[in-house]
Amino acid sequence: MGTDRSAVGVWLVGARGSVATTTVVGAAALRAGLTPPVGCVAELPDFDAAGLPTIGDLVFGGHDVIETALPKRAEQLVQAGVVPARLLDHVRDDLAAADAEIRPGAPLPSDSRPQALLAADLAADLASFRERHGLDRVVVVNVASTERRRSDHPAWARLPLLEQALSRSADVLPPSSLYAYAAFRAGCGYVDFTPSTGARLPALDELARRAGVPYAGSDGKTGETLVKSALAPMFAARALRVRSWSGTNLLGGGDGATLADPDAAASKNASKGLAVPQALGYPVEGRVHIDNVAELGEWKTAWDHISFEGLLGVRMTLQFTWQGCDSALAAPLVLDLARFVSRAQAAGVAGPVPALGFFFKDPLGSAEHGLVRQYDALRAWTRAL
Amino acid sequence: MGTDRSAVGVWLVGARGSVATTTVVGAAALRAGLTPPVGCVAELPDFDAAGLPTIGDLVFGGHDVIETALPKRAEQLVQAGVVPARLLDHVRDDLAAADAEIRPGAPLPSDSRPQALLAADLAADLASFRERHGLDRVVVVNVASTERRRSDHPAWARLPLLEQALSRSADVLPPSSLYAYAAFRAGCGYVDFTPSTGARLPALDELARRAGVPYAGSDGKTGETLVKSALAPMFAARALRVRSWSGTNLLGGGDGATLADPDAAASKNASKGLAVPQALGYPVEGRVHIDNVAELGEWKTAWDHISFEGLLGVRMTLQFTWQGCDSALAAPLVLDLARFVSRAQAAGVAGPVPALGFFFKDPLGSAEHGLVRQYDALRAWTRAL
Amino acid sequence: MGTDRSAVGVWLVGARGSVATTTVVGAAALRAGLTPPVGCVAELPDFDAAGLPTIGDLVFGGHDVIETALPKRAEQLVQAGVVPARLLDHVRDDLAAADAEIRPGAPLPSDSRPQALLAADLAADLASFRERHGLDRVVVVNVASTERRRSDHPAWARLPLLEQALSRSADVLPPSSLYAYAAFRAGCGYVDFTPSTGARLPALDELARRAGVPYAGSDGKTGETLVKSALAPMFAARALRVRSWSGTNLLGGGDGATLADPDAAASKNASKGLAVPQALGYPVEGRVHIDNVAELGEWKTAWDHISFEGLLGVRMTLQFTWQGCDSALAAPLVLDLARFVSRAQAAGVAGPVPALGFFFKDPLGSAEHGLVRQYDALRAWTRAL
Amino acid sequence: MGTDRSAVGVWLVGARGSVATTTVVGAAALRAGLTPPVGCVAELPDFDAAGLPTIGDLVFGGHDVIETALPKRAEQLVQAGVVPARLLDHVRDDLAAADAEIRPGAPLPSDSRPQALLAADLAADLASFRERHGLDRVVVVNVASTERRRSDHPAWARLPLLEQALSRSADVLPPSSLYAYAAFRAGCGYVDFTPSTGARLPALDELARRAGVPYAGSDGKTGETLVKSALAPMFAARALRVRSWSGTNLLGGGDGATLADPDAAASKNASKGLAVPQALGYPVEGRVHIDNVAELGEWKTAWDHISFEGLLGVRMTLQFTWQGCDSALAAPLVLDLARFVSRAQAAGVAGPVPALGFFFKDPLGSAEHGLVRQYDALRAWTRAL
Repeated sequence: MGTDRSAVGVWLVGARGSVATTTVVGAAALRAGLTPPVGCVAELPDFDAAGLPTIGDLVFGGHDVIETALPKRAEQLVQAGVVPARLLDHVRDDLAAADAEIRPGAPLPSDSRPQALLAADLAADLASFRERHGLDRVVVVNVASTERRRSDHPAWARLPLLEQALSRSADVLPPSSLYAYAAFRAGCGYVDFTPSTGARLPALDELARRAGVPYAGSDGKTGETLVKSALAPMFAARALRVRSWSGTNLLGGGDGATLADPDAAASKNASKGLAVPQALGYPVEGRVHIDNVAELGEWKTAWDHISFEGLLGVRMTLQFTWQGCDSALAAPLVLDLARFVSRAQAAGVAGPVPALGFFFKDPLGSAEHGLVRQYDALRAWTRAL
Repeated sequence: MGTDRSAVGVWLVGARGSVATTTVVGAAALRAGLTPPVGCVAELPDFDAAGLPTIGDLVFGGHDVIETALPKRAEQLVQAGVVPARLLDHVRDDLAAADAEIRPGAPLPSDSRPQALLAADLAADLASFRERHGLDRVVVVNVASTERRRSDHPAWARLPLLEQALSRSADVLPPSSLYAYAAFRAGCGYVDFTPSTGARLPALDELARRAGVPYAGSDGKTGETLVKSALAPMFAARALRVRSWSGTNLLGGGDGATLADPDAAASKNASKGLAVPQALGYPVEGRVHIDNVAELGEWKTAWDHISFEGLLGVRMTLQFTWQGCDSALAAPLVLDLARFVSRAQAAGVAGPVPALGFFFKDPLGSAEHGLVRQYDALRAWTRAL
Repeated sequence: MGTDRSAVGVWLVGARGSVATTTVVGAAALRAGLTPPVGCVAELPDFDAAGLPTIGDLVFGGHDVIETALPKRAEQLVQAGVVPARLLDHVRDDLAAADAEIRPGAPLPSDSRPQALLAADLAADLASFRERHGLDRVVVVNVASTERRRSDHPAWARLPLLEQALSRSADVLPPSSLYAYAAFRAGCGYVDFTPSTGARLPALDELARRAGVPYAGSDGKTGETLVKSALAPMFAARALRVRSWSGTNLLGGGDGATLADPDAAASKNASKGLAVPQALGYPVEGRVHIDNVAELGEWKTAWDHISFEGLLGVRMTLQFTWQGCDSALAAPLVLDLARFVSRAQAAGVAGPVPALGFFFKDPLGSAEHGLVRQYDALRAWTRAL
Repeated sequence: MGTDRSAVGVWLVGARGSVATTTVVGAAALRAGLTPPVGCVAELPDFDAAGLPTIGDLVFGGHDVIETALPKRAEQLVQAGVVPARLLDHVRDDLAAADAEIRPGAPLPSDSRPQALLAADLAADLASFRERHGLDRVVVVNVASTERRRSDHPAWARLPLLEQALSRSADVLPPSSLYAYAAFRAGCGYVDFTPSTGARLPALDELARRAGVPYAGSDGKTGETLVKSALAPMFAARALRVRSWSGTNLLGGGDGATLADPDAAASKNASKGLAVPQALGYPVEGRVHIDNVAELGEWKTAWDHISFEGLLGVRMTLQFTWQGCDSALAAPLVLDLARFVSRAQAAGVAGPVPALGFFFKDPLGSAEHGLVRQYDALRAWTRAL
């Protein structure tokens, strides 16, 4: 089926956030050979023959409401211990170039136009970006803050209803879904890196299939859930009975503040809760807390306590503590997903890409949550392309 | 290829140890429907069609130098919190029956006869056990204390040399290997549940193949290494670079005392050390400690500290603490292994059974240490039988 | 000032709960020399000359709405791993004796009499218990489930107002406070072992002082807060700046179910939150969660994550995990408190006993939360008696 | 007794190590008001009236065999995440000034002169430093790598024997003790911040008393032992029985490499082992490991597992993980100790200063290891000055 060795655009929704900034810094540092491709799944030997675009093929742009320019944001990430000070001078040009491609973002609360007009503007931004850089494909990746969960709209059910509603109303789709709509209209793939609604609506799925574009999601698996998806299959494979699985997540900075909002946390908790019962085949007692601990900044800590039993009802426990830097974990996955989705589009895939479930807490189009089996499925899929 | 639904003997070397006692208690309780088959891999739906002997088909015997009878040992395990008090009365008859089949064990230091004579005695015990109970097959499982590591003997290289040496000398094979020799001579499968030398000698492998019997090993994966074999593939699949992996194991009771002996610990550490570098493909800094903490009794605690980095060299950590009861974890695996090895023998397998690597820290005949892939290989093997 | 070597009654509110049952089992086992006085502060050499009543001097009774008799409750605690099976036969008589002194408890929702009448009944129970056993003193200890927090009643402010309200209304005091009222009326000391309101009302304090009886509270320090009160002074003494202190408590059984009720948890969290800012002298970011994890039974696990900084703003962390059995920790403190409060009464102390703050999360009459200084204050107080 | 508000020299043995460099950076940043005095015990309000020299009064010099200048060493500590990049320019002059006062250090293996001559050179360096800066007092602080433990020399027993031996032999005292000897000869106080032998020899104590100079030690309490000294008194105060206390220390960089040497680790382990049994009053099972994990750099992680029991023999556990930066913890204590020892000398104290035991794993002249009581003793001592 060939390869995807052409210029590929990566359009970041939330383009001046920590994840996006680290993504652009990372791509620049990788391209310049200043840092090894740690955390980049697409760079593993298993994917050498997958025909993926290289990191050097990627061009960055995006939307954001924040106005702090990327070079300044990168300096802030140096202070926070995410970006090494020694890299800053070497990536400044790349940051400036990406920053020049950032457009004032997403639907503002004050915007009262019908959403169809907004979507047309967004799609025009994407098309103009593609043309300006002579890109073969553009992949839109949502790395904006998690949205509040909202009640369903009847127009979400079918594409004609959606088109009709968008042409009249300013309040049909949440921002993440409006971006997905605009992406599909512009012929771009779309990635839900957050738990926001995004492309997960029947009407949007219909549009993606009709437009012949792939999408993937949702909610990048970068911490507690990653570990859960590695450990839950262990208990299943050994027939050990998990009695309870409790977790506490301490998140700093913006992510913590967003998720401390109970509605956003509801989105997050729903997607975090699937790995364990799917692997085990039965429901398990225990809660997951997400706390905003502002002083942790870019860092997050998760503690999980698993109570299980062995033969004769003997009770035992496993605990783990994960201390990670969200941006350093997420950024390489953003690069991976842009490359895999671009490759899927080149191969003619339309609609959700189940094989990309490996990257997500709530894998679209797949019921498998076990990490190793997800990896094996990803590898098998690329081999079959 | 049919099934293995016939009476099968399980001959436990170290038959009055905690693991063996829990195995016999567990089998009796399972047979009587008094406890669910938690920890029993062979009872998972994936193996329903594998044609395994049932737990009810198993008959127990063994060797031991300890003289405390199994019912008494079970009482001690009630005190230790391993066996529930309520079960004791219901399994007493089964314990007494198994105890009646225990022979005074292994080569004693004072025994100066050539080892060929000892082996003949052991093999005769096995044959007599098989006949007395009309068993189709007997599987010998070594659950004795870990032996000191000793220097190689030239006769280990080839079977004729070994036979010759055994006929003359009292000091050719360590006990675990002498048992393997006797098992193969008697047409029995053999399982190395400990890190002792056991069947892992070229001459013994030659004998097993010639005798048409399977063997499996070595060193049951019941704690820290089990978790490692679930977590190391996570770092590999996500291309995260592990910088160091350090571990401390606190073991109580007999196991701790044995492994605090530096020579025995050497055996143990060698087999514990393989999961991580195999999964990652590169060596990793860090030590593994095994401490004897007598007061922990039947319990063990492992703490592992993993330092890793993500994109841009950002350093993160994962720690886990495993608090387990060794016997409650090992006993169901002993039952599993007896059943799978018996099935392998029924299917005509001779020599090591790589598909059983799932159960072991140091899987014989297999380079795969990742738990989920080991499980998938086990399942595939049973389907192909 | 002499000693308190006379028969002393311990009247347990919630007399068939796990803490109360373990208290009676423990006292019986200690009296019979079947177990060492582990966890009993009053048995430390520092208090040899404090003139405390001995454990052998204690006689047990109480109130409860539960009807399961103490010997049966003790059997349940054997199943739960709290009470050793070997003790049961030796303490059965003591349990039966204590059970015979349990009266149908606390104000029932259906009881619509003015609370003055209920209080008179409760006080009569106490007086009758004292007389029946020829006791010199009785100490009432509240070990019932934590009450919901309720809004203040104007009659709580002064004793005459309270008396008036009680004579008319069925809904003036929460049960814990009604018990305190009855205790003081009957000339008995009172201990708030829970975070419920209890004696902490101005009108009740007035009554205690007038009646010449001491009281102590509140909320026994048996787990996470105990460790906090040992660790927070470390940061203070070393001038290390604590940036955040987050905690998660997983509680099983009855305690977890009660505290999962948000109103009860509010009581609990208020008393748990004081140790850290008092020791440090400044407020600290971070939440405390209390989860009901029913399967944990009598056990509780707390994980605390403390982020702090050293010189030059370098960030570091301390984490701890406490895995405890609530009843085994609380029961010896109940014995201690009965003995110390009885001693205080013998010495003529009336009102709150600040020196007993050592035992509590929310020490009445004391601003000191650091454990070692609380201990030193307790020792100094007994020496001065 | 007045105050000590005069210029005070701090002579660092190992003056270009990480602790010394951080000390000089920290003092400069504190003096310039660029960082708050976090970790500085002497800056707590309790010591406002203690008459201590201020940080601005301190002048730095020292000995080292390493030739990398302090400004360069500080840059390395920026890379390691210990010193904030923003501070570097502001403290460069202070670093250069301190570096100009560093003399080529300690006895080299190749030096075959009698040690009396070496000591005279070292003492001359101290006297010259004092005169050059018009210092009232100089305190020598040993922050060099931990020495191997060596066998006793008969001349250590009495000062005349020592003088005689030093005048003849090149191999009487280990370097740390030779520095203490030179310090006392030069009328300087001495601090053992490491577990090396230092001043802890009868002959050196005799000299200190005769010379009228104070000394303090040994082995700064900056991590695992600090936490132990806060937690062990908790178990003691609550009469809980500690069954085992096991610890693993993962140390990076130089410290780890030194202590991985079994002889040096022997020194370290001896001093680390005292806090728990002293607090509890009985010996406790369990080992302490010190691992060199080079990749951890300036960071260290300690995990401790404490198994204890409550009433009725119920077993529970407490675990903690300490993740700290050694230099950021040690540097403010070096400043504290220089100030307190200078103050002691001003007040006429000669010999060991038991009240400074608060700072040390192995407190000289004191049997108290509990942190809070040590603090209270320190405060009481300064008040009595």
